[in-house]
Amino acid sequence: MRLLPFVALLVLFFPSQFKAAELSDASSECLDCHASVAPGMVAGWQSSRHARVSPLEALKKPELERRVSAKWVPSDLVQSVVGCAECHTLNPEKHSDTFEHNGYQVHIVVTPEDCATCHPVEEKQYGQNLMSHAYGNLLNNSLYQDLVQTINGVQSLDDGHISIKPASTETNGDSCLSCHGTKVEVKGFDARDTEMGEMEFPVLSGWPNAGVGRINPDGSRGSCSACHTWHRFSIEMARKPHTCSQCHKGPDVPIYKIYQVSKHGNIYASIGKKWNFEEVPWTVGEDFTAPTCATCHVSLVVTPEGDIVAERTHQMNNRLPWRMFGLIYAHAHPKSPDTSVIKNKAGLPLPTDLNGEPASTYLIDNNEQQKRRKILQKVCLSCHGQQWVDGHWARFENNIRTTNEMTLTATELMLKAWETGAAKGLAQNDSIFNETIEKKWMEQWLFFANSTRMSSAMLGTDYGVFDNGRWYMAKSIQELYDWLRMMLAVNSETSIEEKLKKK
Amino acid sequence: MRLLPFVALLVLFFPSQFKAAELSDASSECLDCHASVAPGMVAGWQSSRHARVSPLEALKKPELERRVSAKWVPSDLVQSVVGCAECHTLNPEKHSDTFEHNGYQVHIVVTPEDCATCHPVEEKQYGQNLMSHAYGNLLNNSLYQDLVQTINGVQSLDDGHISIKPASTETNGDSCLSCHGTKVEVKGFDARDTEMGEMEFPVLSGWPNAGVGRINPDGSRGSCSACHTWHRFSIEMARKPHTCSQCHKGPDVPIYKIYQVSKHGNIYASIGKKWNFEEVPWTVGEDFTAPTCATCHVSLVVTPEGDIVAERTHQMNNRLPWRMFGLIYAHAHPKSPDTSVIKNKAGLPLPTDLNGEPASTYLIDNNEQQKRRKILQKVCLSCHGQQWVDGHWARFENNIRTTNEMTLTATELMLKAWETGAAKGLAQNDSIFNETIEKKWMEQWLFFANSTRMSSAMLGTDYGVFDNGRWYMAKSIQELYDWLRMMLAVNSETSIEEKLKKK
Amino acid sequence: MRLLPFVALLVLFFPSQFKAAELSDASSECLDCHASVAPGMVAGWQSSRHARVSPLEALKKPELERRVSAKWVPSDLVQSVVGCAECHTLNPEKHSDTFEHNGYQVHIVVTPEDCATCHPVEEKQYGQNLMSHAYGNLLNNSLYQDLVQTINGVQSLDDGHISIKPASTETNGDSCLSCHGTKVEVKGFDARDTEMGEMEFPVLSGWPNAGVGRINPDGSRGSCSACHTWHRFSIEMARKPHTCSQCHKGPDVPIYKIYQVSKHGNIYASIGKKWNFEEVPWTVGEDFTAPTCATCHVSLVVTPEGDIVAERTHQMNNRLPWRMFGLIYAHAHPKSPDTSVIKNKAGLPLPTDLNGEPASTYLIDNNEQQKRRKILQKVCLSCHGQQWVDGHWARFENNIRTTNEMTLTATELMLKAWETGAAKGLAQNDSIFNETIEKKWMEQWLFFANSTRMSSAMLGTDYGVFDNGRWYMAKSIQELYDWLRMMLAVNSETSIEEKLKKK
Repeated sequence: MRLLPFVALLVLFFPSQFKAAELSDASSECLDCHASVAPGMVAGWQSSRHARVSPLEALKKPELERRVSAKWVPSDLVQSVVGCAECHTLNPEKHSDTFEHNGYQVHIVVTPEDCATCHPVEEKQYGQNLMSHAYGNLLNNSLYQDLVQTINGVQSLDDGHISIKPASTETNGDSCLSCHGTKVEVKGFDARDTEMGEMEFPVLSGWPNAGVGRINPDGSRGSCSACHTWHRFSIEMARKPHTCSQCHKGPDVPIYKIYQVSKHGNIYASIGKKWNFEEVPWTVGEDFTAPTCATCHVSLVVTPEGDIVAERTHQMNNRLPWRMFGLIYAHAHPKSPDTSVIKNKAGLPLPTDLNGEPASTYLIDNNEQQKRRKILQKVCLSCHGQQWVDGHWARFENNIRTTNEMTLTATELMLKAWETGAAKGLAQNDSIFNETIEKKWMEQWLFFANSTRMSSAMLGTDYGVFDNGRWYMAKSIQELYDWLRMMLAVNSETSIEEKLKKK
Repeated sequence: MRLLPFVALLVLFFPSQFKAAELSDASSECLDCHASVAPGMVAGWQSSRHARVSPLEALKKPELERRVSAKWVPSDLVQSVVGCAECHTLNPEKHSDTFEHNGYQVHIVVTPEDCATCHPVEEKQYGQNLMSHAYGNLLNNSLYQDLVQTINGVQSLDDGHISIKPASTETNGDSCLSCHGTKVEVKGFDARDTEMGEMEFPVLSGWPNAGVGRINPDGSRGSCSACHTWHRFSIEMARKPHTCSQCHKGPDVPIYKIYQVSKHGNIYASIGKKWNFEEVPWTVGEDFTAPTCATCHVSLVVTPEGDIVAERTHQMNNRLPWRMFGLIYAHAHPKSPDTSVIKNKAGLPLPTDLNGEPASTYLIDNNEQQKRRKILQKVCLSCHGQQWVDGHWARFENNIRTTNEMTLTATELMLKAWETGAAKGLAQNDSIFNETIEKKWMEQWLFFANSTRMSSAMLGTDYGVFDNGRWYMAKSIQELYDWLRMMLAVNSETSIEEKLKKK
Repeated sequence: MRLLPFVALLVLFFPSQFKAAELSDASSECLDCHASVAPGMVAGWQSSRHARVSPLEALKKPELERRVSAKWVPSDLVQSVVGCAECHTLNPEKHSDTFEHNGYQVHIVVTPEDCATCHPVEEKQYGQNLMSHAYGNLLNNSLYQDLVQTINGVQSLDDGHISIKPASTETNGDSCLSCHGTKVEVKGFDARDTEMGEMEFPVLSGWPNAGVGRINPDGSRGSCSACHTWHRFSIEMARKPHTCSQCHKGPDVPIYKIYQVSKHGNIYASIGKKWNFEEVPWTVGEDFTAPTCATCHVSLVVTPEGDIVAERTHQMNNRLPWRMFGLIYAHAHPKSPDTSVIKNKAGLPLPTDLNGEPASTYLIDNNEQQKRRKILQKVCLSCHGQQWVDGHWARFENNIRTTNEMTLTATELMLKAWETGAAKGLAQNDSIFNETIEKKWMEQWLFFANSTRMSSAMLGTDYGVFDNGRWYMAKSIQELYDWLRMMLAVNSETSIEEKLKKK
């Protein structure tokens, strides 16, 4: 029998019976070669908690301090520390990337389903996180698929016109899918000369990748190591904001930059080195005195008196009433993490109409928004007074309204461009993302309105004014207005097109 | 009698008579509830010097080491450490936000005038700092008020034209005034359910805010906690550059980014963790080996031999010959921190004419500039030789001249646009900040010329070349030239305007 | 006799005969004044290894641990620590900046040739580094000289047209040459009042400067202190990425920003404070667990078992198959560090034709590329598996191809602009860098294609998508297309030019 809950129970009474956990024979065998083949990888693991603590020991901790959410752990895994083999040989039958390697059934890609052996609650929560669906939400949405093409496709000049070739797998893996996650599939097996002689390995598509919505060879979604960097899987790193910056610093999601200039970020940068990033639970005022990303969005936070400020969540959006970025308008959070199912009134795969009206069937309602607002505000209130928090949120939600209004004006100009023939859109069976004026319209919502909202949410206000903020929203509308008129002027001169053709 | 100078004197002779300072009964009562209501806030204070040292002990320090500038401190405050009540119940009669709270006359907003009880020299100096007038300098200047509207106002498309609605208080508080400071006024009193039962609190406008020029409920200007982050008020944080980044990182004032790529910033980032950011006075070569923002602009700096390199200043501009940013041209520093009084020859509220000629009556003269130059250069000379410093300043002041020349060319193109009808300006009774071409002109001085000057001043030279530097200044002039011509072409085709109207 | 190899030999047998190295009398005399004249400068040196260790002691180290590459060091320098005089009085006859100073023949500018006294291998390698030729590669190339003028020259509006004045020495020294290096020459001698009375000093042009390709008063090229910050010359600083950011953060070379958002950069920022940046050799997995810039590009890296992963190199490009940035197209690395000798088929000083075809005579061949690829990949392989590394490189080299294709399309549009009269180029004897449309074309390769390539190379993929990446490449082509058409429309209306002339 593989299950072993009674052992967990047992150790609460006879802890002295158990000696310090050791490495399994299997993992020990892995290290025999890999310590010299890839010493940096092994060194990461050696400094990890996984290398020091067995699931059995981890299960002994009082509930609030526990880092494993499993009620029990398979008996063949529970007593040794978590080494190479413990993860890379799990669920071999589910893994299409399983291969025979020195007598073991090994797989390359460790997946959330593997991690769920000890961390099932986190895996389940993460399945409700938009991020776990980041691959499909991008590529199973026809509009967003077109967006990817217009960004990543190679453009060429053909007889006076610009055409776009579809982007290659390499290009997509090197850009959008680096964060969204690739589809990792086994494309065959290949023999390779190694330092240890010839060996056979599975050939993986979309590799390497540690994107948040990676489609794994066992059919699962996501990559825990996106934030819990392999092979150290350090909670310190996951709690530090640098980790989030990997995907959240660009003009589309400048969250990290905004955090950096916020007072919270200033405090972290100035005195954060004195904080304790390892403790579970994480005690406000004792372990830290200003939040990092994880504090507000993920971590189990308690007061010095032990009261829970926020429950740990890997769903994240259960603390978020609004979806602020990535779409044309900010809107109430989608109900399902799979947003590819959403259709607006016009039948487009968008959570709002082009005039901003929400596709409410697919979005959470006011009650759920208010519930999530309260959960997040409780974190604010552990350092700030009620009036402070209310004032902050009033500004933030005013910001959502006004940035949506500014996007509406830009969209009206865009509609005018399509209508007057200054640009070609859906009615002309053309991409709505490929022409200059369309790209300027997109920057209004994809960069500037997003940045302005995030700047307010996280109090780095220059990103709401000059740094891709309101300055750019205001300029963008004026520029769209001028560009629209210029395109009308240019299109009316037919001699111009003639000049661009090949001679 | 409240004054107690003789106690200060006394303790110099009988220090052993005084035991370690303790928390006052009043503050102790505050903590009874607030330690659990807002533990993070309380934790900040607990790790502060205020929580450990009484004014009496602080007054005993030798003059150079003293952190309080008061010659005496009221007797009812001098013996206990500086707790909640010591600041939040000061000057109750002056504070319109004073309210009865569990038997105490408490106010929410602690102001520079409150801090002046122990730090009067700093408060007085700060009153001469442009920052203390940041609210009025923005909003009492009709041109700058219009600038704020054109950035923050919501634009809409009305029958083929763009119109702007005035920005709301929430929007202004969430953007410009976040750094400049809001006007915090009591708008009434409101009963609220709290964990401790129903309580009445003043309702504040413009709250929260810690902007440098905040207008406070006691009539004073500024917020010391803009830099001395509440409730720790750590000198370490104020001396670290991250604190300045909150308002000085955007394209309008990219000082922090420039510092980061300067050799000074590199040194700080690489080995600054070994420095002592707590010592007063701050000894060059011992406590630190490269400057942060505070070193050159604020701090009391001494040599290892104890000679004063720079006196502490919260006025800051007494070390600055030039005002480099925020206005169309760089110019000698204004005499008064209240710049809303300035008028140029044309009667506009600007420190120069549109051709760059300074409104000299309102600006410091060459002698005062030279005096300030010498004060700042003395800091440079504590690590660099005279020829190094002279060479650096020659480049910097050449930079001021050439960036002003580039702005002049952009302004001449702008004047040409107004004159030829390519844009509408003052003569047409229209905003000079609302159209695309005007915004492109503004970026020349508000972003690019500023960045170029700061890059030179602080030696992060890529910000003077490609990163919003000379590359953009050069391109901006060419773009203004093209845009001007395009607008003339578009405006001459009357059919275009017709097409944009509603059908 | 000055040479002293036998002493080095001797000390291996009788180390106890030698007491701790001391400061020379000459350097001691320097400090007598300079410790109080420039305490920060002296403090930097005091905390250096130079201040603690003599060349003799340094020579005793086992070869892999040695920080000096000289086989011997002149006998008058070998026994004392490396103080002021040891460097600033070296090779007096070669230094045109040598001057008599309190009885010593001192020079101001310490050069790579001076440093080569103890570090000859590094100096020789660095001579093969493109950086050592950064001055001439910019200013001895007629096209790049023109580029500098169009960026740095002051533009003015003359009777409706824009003209450019040549940039001043101060401006160039304050911008491009700050990183590329100035030409430092003695322009005479000047008496100056100092704290120690009147003294005479050489007057240097292009001073201060620590650019990588500085032309020195002894005729040598470069400045070791560009990376090895004076006067601490800390290997810790040189190995930390902040140092590289001084010249590699702007949109033309955003390497540092890309590193920051890469997983490598995240790890460094989160846990790098625990690493050992002082050890020589540098052991992967022990001293550090993720690379900084130096790890991949410069340092001597070994495994915990002592095997060499990468030999130390100050040439750097011997680990680089591709030259990714700075030119119109990415191409195989130039053979010679002096790129001003390169001519393409059309006779232009460029390593490729305008259509991207490489000027192969001047560039390394496939074999050499493969050799360098393997050297660099060996660093990757110390933490990553072969399939990981191969997958990464396949994407990177696909990236080089596709960004070159996108640049080609932009260039075809540019050629069309020159051909149709929308802009003036070489055929019209005009700069190819001065007009708006030309600057938009340049941004395609100088900013966006570069950023996209670097983002792939160093795995900070948002810089390959939204942050100056493919989004901008795609938009740039569309904007060039529109701008080209708009310029044709504007140029066809002759009345516009008339309006811009002076009235």
